[in-house]
Amino acid sequence: MDNQIEKLDDHYIVCGYGRIGRILTQYLIQKYINVVVIEKDTAQAVQLDGDGVLYLIGEAVDENMLIRAGIRQASGIVAGLETDDENIQLVQLARQLNPDFFIVARASRDAFKKPLEDAGAHKVISPYDIGARRMAHAILRPTVIKFLETAFNDESTEFQFEEIRVRQGAKLANVSLMDSGIRQEMNLIVIAIQDKNGDMMFNPKADTQFVVGDTIVVMGSAKSIKQLEILMQG
Amino acid sequence: MDNQIEKLDDHYIVCGYGRIGRILTQYLIQKYINVVVIEKDTAQAVQLDGDGVLYLIGEAVDENMLIRAGIRQASGIVAGLETDDENIQLVQLARQLNPDFFIVARASRDAFKKPLEDAGAHKVISPYDIGARRMAHAILRPTVIKFLETAFNDESTEFQFEEIRVRQGAKLANVSLMDSGIRQEMNLIVIAIQDKNGDMMFNPKADTQFVVGDTIVVMGSAKSIKQLEILMQG
Repeated sequence: MDNQIEKLDDHYIVCGYGRIGRILTQYLIQKYINVVVIEKDTAQAVQLDGDGVLYLIGEAVDENMLIRAGIRQASGIVAGLETDDENIQLVQLARQLNPDFFIVARASRDAFKKPLEDAGAHKVISPYDIGARRMAHAILRPTVIKFLETAFNDESTEFQFEEIRVRQGAKLANVSLMDSGIRQEMNLIVIAIQDKNGDMMFNPKADTQFVVGDTIVVMGSAKSIKQLEILMQG
Repeated sequence: MDNQIEKLDDHYIVCGYGRIGRILTQYLIQKYINVVVIEKDTAQAVQLDGDGVLYLIGEAVDENMLIRAGIRQASGIVAGLETDDENIQLVQLARQLNPDFFIVARASRDAFKKPLEDAGAHKVISPYDIGARRMAHAILRPTVIKFLETAFNDESTEFQFEEIRVRQGAKLANVSLMDSGIRQEMNLIVIAIQDKNGDMMFNPKADTQFVVGDTIVVMGSAKSIKQLEILMQG
């Protein structure tokens, strides 16, 4: 398996193949993202083989193991180990070995968000807190939640939520929202534009121009989104 | 405490005051929703007192207990007990005691979604699955996730996600989206309209009229949303 892993680049390393790690891995694979799992429990090998996932059995908080998993060529890592302490150590080590790639970490609760971010995680997720908030929203804003679940369901092609990067040489670079035909012809809603510094403009005005490096947050049919992706490619 | 509970109506009963139950209860109370907690662990009473929450100590899957918690006058119930079996039993019993109110249930995994829905739950939430999906989206669609987190943060008044019901006698009832000034004057985006049968129309056209009983999914500043809420009141 090491041979196959060596050939990878732009892959994700998922540390911990518990319930969350497994669901997450399946999502990523569905989206054509290569994944290498590091799991310490030998008993999980059967499941991993059955799922057709590349993996290494051993401790993730280990420089050699992370290098074997191709950390220097990877796009990112998911720290989904059992304890917050292990995840903090893993994030620190991963950040040293690859200063630029994307780090997602799981926290047992929101209180561990800050230490994980300080260690170098870009995004920290606490399933219990998210679950609690989702239950509250299901009560407070049931239609919004129903709407979002539809928009995030890959099978509902009528309406989706997506982000599109404006690439160098894109047909719509330096064109205004108004002149782009996005709203009128493609029937898409541009909800926000994030510039390359990470600043987000909500509900952009009609005369806003698309700039190379912007990321556009857009809603509409899968078909129109595909069309727009082509117009934003270089 | 029974005296105080007796006076309530339109409240929510939260069964189980573990980590999720507690966060959820705090969210609901922040939004001025009355909550009665049923928790079997006597040791949690100190925490509940400290949190200033109305509660009953005992088993939730018990007709008398649910009646003491005011199930017949409640707006809904949250089944957040430890096991899926307990939650299924609770949902069944709650449905018998109040056929109309809103039932939210927690599932340990997506596989229990169907049995809980069959038992009568309107909304089933599995924190692990939601957490895994959120981690995947943080990788696949980081800007969309950042956008949504901002829109759902009550402190970010610049841009929020809300739903508004069109009430009998509302100023904007039978007025079209185009003529309403929602887009041009209030700078709000109407993303979807759900009719009273629960059918959802995405990205409604400019000539779509608002009908009494519709629920409008809208995005924009907190101030504009407040304005629109007034125009949709009876």
